[in-house]
Amino acid sequence: MKTMNAAVTYAKENGERFVDELKALLRIPSISTDPERTADVRRAAEFVAAELRRIGMENVRLIETSTPETVLAPSSGPAQVVAAREGHPLVYADYLHAADVDGKAATTVLLYGHYDVQPPEPLDKWKTPPFEPTERDGNIYARGAVDDKGQMWMHVKALESLFAAGGGRLPVNVRVIVEGEEEVGGEGIAEFVREHPDELAADVALVSDSEMFAPDLPTLCVGLRGMIYTEIEARGARTDLHSGMYGGAAPNPFVALAQIIAGLKDDSGHITIPGFYDKVSPPSAAELKAWRELPFDEEHYRETEVGSTVLTGEAGFSVLERTWARPALDVHGIAGGFTGAGAKTVIPSRALAKVSMRLVPDQKPMEAFAQYKAYVEKICPKGIALEVRLIHSGDPIAVSTDNPYVRAATSAMHTVFAKETVFIRSGGSIPIVGDFIRELGIPSILMGFGLPDDNLHAPNEKFHLANFHRGIESIVRFLASVGEA
Amino acid sequence: MKTMNAAVTYAKENGERFVDELKALLRIPSISTDPERTADVRRAAEFVAAELRRIGMENVRLIETSTPETVLAPSSGPAQVVAAREGHPLVYADYLHAADVDGKAATTVLLYGHYDVQPPEPLDKWKTPPFEPTERDGNIYARGAVDDKGQMWMHVKALESLFAAGGGRLPVNVRVIVEGEEEVGGEGIAEFVREHPDELAADVALVSDSEMFAPDLPTLCVGLRGMIYTEIEARGARTDLHSGMYGGAAPNPFVALAQIIAGLKDDSGHITIPGFYDKVSPPSAAELKAWRELPFDEEHYRETEVGSTVLTGEAGFSVLERTWARPALDVHGIAGGFTGAGAKTVIPSRALAKVSMRLVPDQKPMEAFAQYKAYVEKICPKGIALEVRLIHSGDPIAVSTDNPYVRAATSAMHTVFAKETVFIRSGGSIPIVGDFIRELGIPSILMGFGLPDDNLHAPNEKFHLANFHRGIESIVRFLASVGEA
Repeated sequence: MKTMNAAVTYAKENGERFVDELKALLRIPSISTDPERTADVRRAAEFVAAELRRIGMENVRLIETSTPETVLAPSSGPAQVVAAREGHPLVYADYLHAADVDGKAATTVLLYGHYDVQPPEPLDKWKTPPFEPTERDGNIYARGAVDDKGQMWMHVKALESLFAAGGGRLPVNVRVIVEGEEEVGGEGIAEFVREHPDELAADVALVSDSEMFAPDLPTLCVGLRGMIYTEIEARGARTDLHSGMYGGAAPNPFVALAQIIAGLKDDSGHITIPGFYDKVSPPSAAELKAWRELPFDEEHYRETEVGSTVLTGEAGFSVLERTWARPALDVHGIAGGFTGAGAKTVIPSRALAKVSMRLVPDQKPMEAFAQYKAYVEKICPKGIALEVRLIHSGDPIAVSTDNPYVRAATSAMHTVFAKETVFIRSGGSIPIVGDFIRELGIPSILMGFGLPDDNLHAPNEKFHLANFHRGIESIVRFLASVGEA
Repeated sequence: MKTMNAAVTYAKENGERFVDELKALLRIPSISTDPERTADVRRAAEFVAAELRRIGMENVRLIETSTPETVLAPSSGPAQVVAAREGHPLVYADYLHAADVDGKAATTVLLYGHYDVQPPEPLDKWKTPPFEPTERDGNIYARGAVDDKGQMWMHVKALESLFAAGGGRLPVNVRVIVEGEEEVGGEGIAEFVREHPDELAADVALVSDSEMFAPDLPTLCVGLRGMIYTEIEARGARTDLHSGMYGGAAPNPFVALAQIIAGLKDDSGHITIPGFYDKVSPPSAAELKAWRELPFDEEHYRETEVGSTVLTGEAGFSVLERTWARPALDVHGIAGGFTGAGAKTVIPSRALAKVSMRLVPDQKPMEAFAQYKAYVEKICPKGIALEVRLIHSGDPIAVSTDNPYVRAATSAMHTVFAKETVFIRSGGSIPIVGDFIRELGIPSILMGFGLPDDNLHAPNEKFHLANFHRGIESIVRFLASVGEA
């Protein structure tokens, strides 16, 4: 308790410096999907490693990764690995000298975060540049502010505070793993977890890459949707053709993709892929009841968060059910052809759609992809050749609330926020949580401090600075409490 | 006859130089749709004007144009002109001193062509660069080789040959009008024809912007499809959203556009817009019979021209009917969202589809657009706001074969090719032909020398050099014959 309180005081006294350090990290455009930013991504990794070393963590190192790119043939057949691209490094650190507690080995907590960010486009929508962090109205605006540099930095600063309060010792064993490919599928860390589980051996993982249900409402996330991110490439004529000469005879891959995409949902927003819902496990009655009691107003959400005339999605389910506990299908972009100003009368020879599906317990990504691929090929219009590729995938997750770490987390947040924690799910995907369950056999505590209007993956991403500081205090209390210090 | 033969001899003796001059013109990247090429477009106009001046044409000048950009509001209401952009200049020249024939005023022929070209993209598909004209296998490869710089140059070189043979006089009155916006809708010339019909007063127009049905088969085109080129802009959420958090609740403009596009055609390729076919006038039984006798093999066409596994389009019609005498609908590109390498899990706030329809006699472009717009708005999924814009349009055309100019043209080509002329239609649109009918009250002779495999609007556009020379001779003979010289 003494260490805990001293660490909380330290964090409060050094809060401004912590924000300044975060700004320096946010200035690095570590966009993992952009091959031209490879050096910046590495610079961010080195920045994090240097700080972990400075505060007292041990065995700090960058772990190189590589990512096989998998292509699936249009007809059924085995997946083919066509290329291995160089991945972005993992940052690893540990401290494994915590004192035994009552004769039992100290608990080990695995802290996970990521230092890579989404692309900032469209740039003209940002009020201040995405890589020039700016404070406004109690928030810090920058790409990665909340997802996930700001939240990952809370972990580092909580560790620094505990080291300072403990005279260079931590009250609990800690391993830190920070990845640089979360926004592009995280294949590198998945492979590392799979191949080197001993190096990450722990009792529980702490993941801060999610959000609070509402401002001032401490939240633990106990469910995540999984996903499959795919590309459908459609080819028609051998070469681009003139739509005057050939319109009415040549297949148009854009029209074909439109017909395929339109065929994936019915009028009520239900996904039409045969078998797709077979494994969907509905939330319990108790869970549904708790969701109904959350401070959530669909009309307010529509107006303030989405800003569309009406909400869409599957008929017969509430917004929270639709975004937390039901699959969804979205199209992210359609490449090819002519999209410049003016008119070009071309029937393009090819077009490519980026289509993803969110999955819920107990759907299996590989099975869902196989169902999707077979159906897309079945409804493909004549004259069009398809290639359906899986870009990446992640398991849906349900976290048990019945463990001491959940109790430690709710207790820590209760002290900081003076409120009971709510248990929610998230519509997003954090594939690593599934990897930790499957490969390390450990649960994850999803203690996130983002807010629903933080503009995740969008222009003007922000992080509420009060939550940055409350997050550090909560993590300090959680770690000290798990170590019973 | 003497002048005609001397001109033909001159053209043959100077053929190589004519090709060299054409190459110089083809090196100018006069891409009318690209605002960054404005200076190059003007340079091409000046190149053509200088040559017209050199060969002896009079009153040579550039005519400046401006193009109003029209936007139609999503709800019904009047079209709004939102901006007038500067247009590309017209090139005008005339020679109006031809001798009377048998006491009657000499005939005046209006020669039309265009010096602007389509964008060359995708650049990596060109075997040699699009603006470095290259001779290969008896062809000249370059953007604009056949569409329309090469064919327009035939007109200029036929005039030069007639001037040379006639001692500085032409056997027929000639006006030349060459535009620089054919590939972007030709609003500038349309406005000029509408507002200054006296300055283009003529008896007949000669347009060489079409193709021969087969190599060595002299062809007159007597029907053209019209078109409406549109944009559908779909807006959903106020800003880009994360597909994890919002997938299942936020409207997706790409899915909406896919559903709209898929809703525009039924399974048999029939356009489903209510009333769209009401004004469609079928070809005559005689015309259909003549088409069946043309040397055309659908399987050969599929394999060599289209290169797709099967042909598509409306069931129950032959390929020639589908591409010449039936409406068609094509999508040229869909802009917005994320189309880069890798994965970005975004629900974009907006997406834009470029959709065009080819029209046939007696459809009216404005009526067809109104039907389309109303239907698109009707089938728009909930939660999506639309803006449906008309980018440009052109009337479908049917040319009468019963006039002396058609006879002069067929006679000229018979001498050059030693074959009977076939009368075909084209699936493409040449809106100016409609303007000439409507505003000037004159028919057009569509005497084109392109070939079906000339890669119009596509990479590796070419012009068969033998046709360039035969085209010049045919035009010399046509003009001399119309002037009875």
